Amino acid sequence: MAPEQGVAPAGADFLRQVGADIFVGCGAPLREAALVASELVEANLMGYDSHGIVRCNEYVDYVHRGRITPGAAHRIVREQRNTAVVDCGLNFGQVGATYMTDLACGKARDGGIAYIVSTRCSHVGRVGSYVQRAAERGYFAFATCNNQKVGHIVAPWGGREGRLGTNPLAFGAPTEKWPVVLDMTTCMIAGGKLNMLKLAGKPAPPGTIQDVEGNPSTDPAVITALSLDPAAPSGTILPFGSAYGYKGYGLSMMVEIMGGIMAGLDMTQHNPGANGFAIIVVDPDAFFGRAAFRSLVDSMCAYQMSSAPAPGFSEVVVPGLYDFRLREKRLAEGIPVERSVWDLVIEAGKRVGVKVPKEVRA
Amino acid sequence: MAPEQGVAPAGADFLRQVGADIFVGCGAPLREAALVASELVEANLMGYDSHGIVRCNEYVDYVHRGRITPGAAHRIVREQRNTAVVDCGLNFGQVGATYMTDLACGKARDGGIAYIVSTRCSHVGRVGSYVQRAAERGYFAFATCNNQKVGHIVAPWGGREGRLGTNPLAFGAPTEKWPVVLDMTTCMIAGGKLNMLKLAGKPAPPGTIQDVEGNPSTDPAVITALSLDPAAPSGTILPFGSAYGYKGYGLSMMVEIMGGIMAGLDMTQHNPGANGFAIIVVDPDAFFGRAAFRSLVDSMCAYQMSSAPAPGFSEVVVPGLYDFRLREKRLAEGIPVERSVWDLVIEAGKRVGVKVPKEVRA
Repeated sequence: MAPEQGVAPAGADFLRQVGADIFVGCGAPLREAALVASELVEANLMGYDSHGIVRCNEYVDYVHRGRITPGAAHRIVREQRNTAVVDCGLNFGQVGATYMTDLACGKARDGGIAYIVSTRCSHVGRVGSYVQRAAERGYFAFATCNNQKVGHIVAPWGGREGRLGTNPLAFGAPTEKWPVVLDMTTCMIAGGKLNMLKLAGKPAPPGTIQDVEGNPSTDPAVITALSLDPAAPSGTILPFGSAYGYKGYGLSMMVEIMGGIMAGLDMTQHNPGANGFAIIVVDPDAFFGRAAFRSLVDSMCAYQMSSAPAPGFSEVVVPGLYDFRLREKRLAEGIPVERSVWDLVIEAGKRVGVKVPKEVRA
Repeated sequence: MAPEQGVAPAGADFLRQVGADIFVGCGAPLREAALVASELVEANLMGYDSHGIVRCNEYVDYVHRGRITPGAAHRIVREQRNTAVVDCGLNFGQVGATYMTDLACGKARDGGIAYIVSTRCSHVGRVGSYVQRAAERGYFAFATCNNQKVGHIVAPWGGREGRLGTNPLAFGAPTEKWPVVLDMTTCMIAGGKLNMLKLAGKPAPPGTIQDVEGNPSTDPAVITALSLDPAAPSGTILPFGSAYGYKGYGLSMMVEIMGGIMAGLDMTQHNPGANGFAIIVVDPDAFFGRAAFRSLVDSMCAYQMSSAPAPGFSEVVVPGLYDFRLREKRLAEGIPVERSVWDLVIEAGKRVGVKVPKEVRA
């Protein structure tokens, strides 16, 4: 199959190496640089291109503006047997979130369930990655991620002013093959997707955004909050649920409580860091054992997929299945990288004195 | 204001007394009978009439068919410091769920977080009630409730056969006044609401249900699974989210995992009991304290409600606010009870030898 014009297939190892070089160039220790790069490339492999290698330049920007402190240590600032508050020190969010996930798994082993929240956590990337990490070890995990006040581009239900972030939530559960991984925003469209549409000059799907007056719009440019003066009136993304948007609004508030308020943060103020990451991990060994749990999740998945498809669908899948299938395909055929995205990666390299090849490699 | 034709305002105390009499007539100890009746009346007060006093006759039916065993003891069948599996003994679901909520609060005080799941739990009523109970004591709570296989009237995303229950989830958080309480199904319309529409001969809202072939429908009668042979092909309710229904589908699977699978139950089999209730309770004292938590939730609510309303809305509210306002109104003016509903309550009384007044009283 001929590649799409302006799109070249890149090898995952190649992208990981370039990413790691750039983050080492930012001052990150090699192990942490490799972790961040690997998280971005995993997002690409799974089809979350808005959370992939395209972020390199943005992260370099954050480092230069002091919003990310490469190599900073994390610190447990409050702890009980099954809970902890982790100050992530403004290191790359992936470093803190990975540490928190491992800490939660350890505490869940010892007591059945654990809940860890963060402060000063930078952008963690794909939230699904962390619940997947826990699920791959046999745990059940639920994670949430709120946004800093400047990212409040989602309107409350019935409102027309930004009051919430895109506030994703995710859960993961093990199966014999790929884990079940749901990773969803609690609004009608993710901020990253909206930005990609804006860059491409494409409209947003109907029913996802509204202009500054609260009238329906499909023009991504109505959301000015992120690009211009954050205090100026801006259009907003609608909470998830269309006519039943009070549900997405409610879920978004839950994410806010779990990721920000429980960490002692007032959402109406500026708090350092980009994301309030939070994770709950459950060890099925406290219930009926990991083997039984895994087998029952398998049974659930098979049961769902046994449903005859509705008109317009060719099969019934479970959350994450398309992503894992795409991952196999992209591992085999390469990750499609658009010219405009690669130019951003090259620019990121230049800014930290790292030479990035002009073209991607397989 | 003249009452709606065929609708009479009933006092909450009066309804509680009638309900308690009926459940005592079923063989429940007075304290448990009063608890169940109080839960139903609270649902009426909050506007969840489909989970209100209308259920009396259904519960009597369950008792007569052995699906509910009044007075049965609950038993902890598996326990770790912060987790437990409670066998609710097929007692009224409200009895087991209330016990589980209190157990979870106690365990959360000791370790920061607790997670309790059930087996053999009957219909628990309004799920929001239990997270509200925890929130009123200063905790943050998250609860889920799955359905028995016979209640699998919700299609998976892209499917046309019932594979999931209506699977509600709820969360509650304290404020200085009424707690924030979100109580939502993970499908497009609650089963109880659909039944009320069917009884009233009204159509379902567009986009909520599909017929047996998976084509859109607004006729509640296409869902035959609950009323006829459960094995016969039936129409289905769609998962929550309209064009993004994979999100509601994913959340529904999470409810299934939390309430059924973690309790060791295979959802493809018949398991005794109606609901798999599960609750996670967090004690903010393990983080930055209950007072700070409550105050930050207040701040969040005020911030949301400070948004200018969008066209078509007169104000921005937070989850539960309309319900608590309605509760005040109904406490003052009475709970509107339809003639057809009261006739069902009278019938329930007759079946257990309890004389119920022909007309409701204030």
